[in-house]
Amino acid sequence: MKTYKMVLCYDGSRYNGWQKQGNTDNTLQEKLEKILTEIAGVETEIAGSGRTDAGTHAKGQVASFRMDWKRTAAELLTEINGRLPEDVGALSLEEAEPRFHARLNAKAKRYVYTIWTGEMPPVFWRKYSFWCKDELDVEAMKEAASAFVGTHDFKSFCANKRMKKSTVRTIYDINIEQKEQRLVLSFTGNGFLYQMVRILTGTLIEVGEGKRSPMEMEEILAAENREAAGFTAPSRGLMLDEVFYEPYGKGTEMP
Amino acid sequence: MKTYKMVLCYDGSRYNGWQKQGNTDNTLQEKLEKILTEIAGVETEIAGSGRTDAGTHAKGQVASFRMDWKRTAAELLTEINGRLPEDVGALSLEEAEPRFHARLNAKAKRYVYTIWTGEMPPVFWRKYSFWCKDELDVEAMKEAASAFVGTHDFKSFCANKRMKKSTVRTIYDINIEQKEQRLVLSFTGNGFLYQMVRILTGTLIEVGEGKRSPMEMEEILAAENREAAGFTAPSRGLMLDEVFYEPYGKGTEMP
Repeated sequence: MKTYKMVLCYDGSRYNGWQKQGNTDNTLQEKLEKILTEIAGVETEIAGSGRTDAGTHAKGQVASFRMDWKRTAAELLTEINGRLPEDVGALSLEEAEPRFHARLNAKAKRYVYTIWTGEMPPVFWRKYSFWCKDELDVEAMKEAASAFVGTHDFKSFCANKRMKKSTVRTIYDINIEQKEQRLVLSFTGNGFLYQMVRILTGTLIEVGEGKRSPMEMEEILAAENREAAGFTAPSRGLMLDEVFYEPYGKGTEMP
Repeated sequence: MKTYKMVLCYDGSRYNGWQKQGNTDNTLQEKLEKILTEIAGVETEIAGSGRTDAGTHAKGQVASFRMDWKRTAAELLTEINGRLPEDVGALSLEEAEPRFHARLNAKAKRYVYTIWTGEMPPVFWRKYSFWCKDELDVEAMKEAASAFVGTHDFKSFCANKRMKKSTVRTIYDINIEQKEQRLVLSFTGNGFLYQMVRILTGTLIEVGEGKRSPMEMEEILAAENREAAGFTAPSRGLMLDEVFYEPYGKGTEMP
């Protein structure tokens, strides 16, 4: 039995998110387990580095699985890509340490949120961005974002109100950059709570629109209450960009 | 009655091309005429600068129509965008000379063809590129492309075998550029025959794959026979990028 680490990209538009669930169909995890089970001939499970919501995309989701495979990892990669639908691609596959687990061993993740700021409709970006028609004060958004960098209790930014585990997370960096008609927000942190990136983005958009002041961010964090934060930006603008398995700042692949 | 010039972009994936046809549904022209007729309250026709094939996209299609509209062009633009589906957008609208006609007055057009050259599947580019898995000799493609620049009889590159009008066209420029995992071919000319850009691209891909020599291009042109040229590259990789209404090289918007 070998353990594999696989990097995946997918257009999440037509999926009910990553995670297999009792009552919903058409999840990415399900789709992949079906393919791996076909290849292996025995029931095979896959673990993602984390869930992505319905409609959310990935350029670098990482998943781990175990398989009794006699040929090379490159051949297994070809085998998997040959069975994947065209909106999912396996980018790389390698044999990992026997105990490697995509979620448990992840040290950091980067998510990218794309806001369409063009005046005209985002015809080619309609599934990959959230169209914000109001003009945004990007400098105010940057100032507000700086309040989130560091180690904080992000309970106000967690959509799961019954979360019993710790809601403390560390954000290493938030980068906000205008690229043509898109305002691109990159969040790098040691982990993110349920819908945390989307709520952070929604709150920053409200700052950009002048509905909130950058000064309020400290209060929102202190409130430890979801009601204190802004709206949840739509899932289609969100992309899981990269998952890191080295401590932040230690590896060569760090941002 | 005023005459308007409108610039449109669209994702052609789910349309049967631009041109209204007796027996097919769901064309862009039909869609737009329906919207303009609703707004005007009387049957309104629209003329595109040219057809785009089923599955082909546009970033700058130009269309003209006449309407008895009392408010500003900006208000009409908003009215139109409010009724368009999310895969079509009107980028600009202005009142034009009374006799302006998007096709008859067009002086030049630029089409862009995107070839995906990545090793891994083009998940986010699957509808906007043609995946070429073989390695391409880009220098040979550039050399071959230079044979097409200038005024030639492009009968060998015309999919309409019963074409009775002249098949002589002028190509001003063919630019081939690698952008990350995409090889982007831009064709600027005074006009293009039916599927001409797709057949030129298919022929250039065969050169890139080493199946044809750049030296053969002169012979293909001289043959004046569709059978002499290469395959027709798929419509999804093609984008109508821009339409020019000034003689090539004279305007400020020239490439």
